[in-house]
Amino acid sequence: MSTSIGFIGLGIMGGPMSANLAAAGFAVAGYDVHRPALDRLTAAGGQPCARIAEAVVDADVVITMLPDSPQVEEVVLGEEGVLDYAKPGTLLIDMSTIRPETSRRVASLGSTRGVRVLDAPVSGGQQGAIDGALSIMAGGDERDFRAAGGIFDVLGKTVVHVGPHGAGQTVKAANQLVVGGTYALVAEAIVFLEASGVDASAGLEVLAGGLAGSRILELKRKTMVAREFQPGFRIDLHHKDMGIVLDAARTAGVALPVGALTAQLIAAARAQGYGDLDHSAVLRVVEGLSGVRAWFGHPGFSV
Amino acid sequence: MSTSIGFIGLGIMGGPMSANLAAAGFAVAGYDVHRPALDRLTAAGGQPCARIAEAVVDADVVITMLPDSPQVEEVVLGEEGVLDYAKPGTLLIDMSTIRPETSRRVASLGSTRGVRVLDAPVSGGQQGAIDGALSIMAGGDERDFRAAGGIFDVLGKTVVHVGPHGAGQTVKAANQLVVGGTYALVAEAIVFLEASGVDASAGLEVLAGGLAGSRILELKRKTMVAREFQPGFRIDLHHKDMGIVLDAARTAGVALPVGALTAQLIAAARAQGYGDLDHSAVLRVVEGLSGVRAWFGHPGFSV
Repeated sequence: MSTSIGFIGLGIMGGPMSANLAAAGFAVAGYDVHRPALDRLTAAGGQPCARIAEAVVDADVVITMLPDSPQVEEVVLGEEGVLDYAKPGTLLIDMSTIRPETSRRVASLGSTRGVRVLDAPVSGGQQGAIDGALSIMAGGDERDFRAAGGIFDVLGKTVVHVGPHGAGQTVKAANQLVVGGTYALVAEAIVFLEASGVDASAGLEVLAGGLAGSRILELKRKTMVAREFQPGFRIDLHHKDMGIVLDAARTAGVALPVGALTAQLIAAARAQGYGDLDHSAVLRVVEGLSGVRAWFGHPGFSV
Repeated sequence: MSTSIGFIGLGIMGGPMSANLAAAGFAVAGYDVHRPALDRLTAAGGQPCARIAEAVVDADVVITMLPDSPQVEEVVLGEEGVLDYAKPGTLLIDMSTIRPETSRRVASLGSTRGVRVLDAPVSGGQQGAIDGALSIMAGGDERDFRAAGGIFDVLGKTVVHVGPHGAGQTVKAANQLVVGGTYALVAEAIVFLEASGVDASAGLEVLAGGLAGSRILELKRKTMVAREFQPGFRIDLHHKDMGIVLDAARTAGVALPVGALTAQLIAAARAQGYGDLDHSAVLRVVEGLSGVRAWFGHPGFSV
């Protein structure tokens, strides 16, 4: 008999992930607060559920893919939540990006009900979810990580067990720290080059080929220079994630000065109305600081 | 008759560069204030000179590779300097990393003496110089850039004409901005992971494979986690370069908040006595901020 999965949170990420699991032969019972998400699951061969209890009660594995820590607390720990209905021995895999501390709390409360827990946040975005090509960073017991192998293989390409409960979230936070900071740095390089009268495309091409090179320079330098900010991964979400980074750093007792500054620039992007744009739109804040949007009209400006 | 080159500044970078040019068949007459550097040029098949004038007077091309802007001003513009002796039509290629403004001034004063000038700073470090595999970012006239092609081909692997006089320095400054900032970000990620009790090596490996990936994560994550800081490129030099970045940004009229913070962290590294270590040693400052060097003795710490 195939492993039965209860999947809670069928949105931009959870939708294609649950569909891929159904396509791979898992029995997927899904729950979401939005009706169209349930209809999409039905079309993908899954079983839509009207309540969390329905999705969870017969599941061997419960997967949650939710927006933020409060939603995970509500869905998993709250009244009529996952822990109220999951049978002992169930494996709960929370793939949301949330505070490491919340992941540790969920694991601890899960164990009192006989529910094993992994935190397994992902990177790779909507396209990675659709392609089953996510990077998955898992925290929890090695045994549970191995037990989840068949599921992770469907969802991800790079799957790494990085440590105990919360470690997956910590690595995801470190990832978002470096990604956000790199966008800010590339934004500053673009503004600096343009304001100096240098063709930013040519300059960034040299940078991309040397020690300054990065995946972000490789994938995003053209769209950033052209000011094309269709998401991708939205500023609003990266803003949420930088909150997790700084909160987790406080918990760990360390100062992250570049991370803190990056968080402020991303917060400014949100405050300036760019929340729905791609996170590379932190460039809007950096250029706005120096009022250099005028360079678009400058005769030396070229895309 | 082969192009004759006057090469001024035969140090860590200029030494191997001039030797490679001599080995490629150019007639190289070299000058340096340090006697051993001249001896090495002799051994490499070049002609040592006791004065700048000697190296310059019969040269078709003069190359300067000097520590900083004041040295370039002194050697090129000063009394008994390059412009006093270079014959009209000489091509002066300044490959030092200096202020873009100084490069523009050298080009302007050169043109009044009939000397054509390129600014052509490099990246790739000592090993790149030895291997003839530098990245070369050139500013100046397209015609002069083409004329220097045979020389650049010996010295570099990636050779790009990025714009008018000073543009090479501007791109180099942007490169150092992104490189310095990326080191600071990776340092913060390491400190955050370790202080959270997560194995930094495993965590950084995940980061290196995704959107956070960079050449620095690829090349330096192992040595940084192990706290191995043999240069490479010294903190002292990156400190100098961040001064150029911020000075050039002031000239261009733009604010670079992450660049400025990065410059302060590198300045702190120098102030704390790490000037001779590799620039990745900015990690010492980041961990020192939170007093987390104790993690070396923590049972969970592994390299």
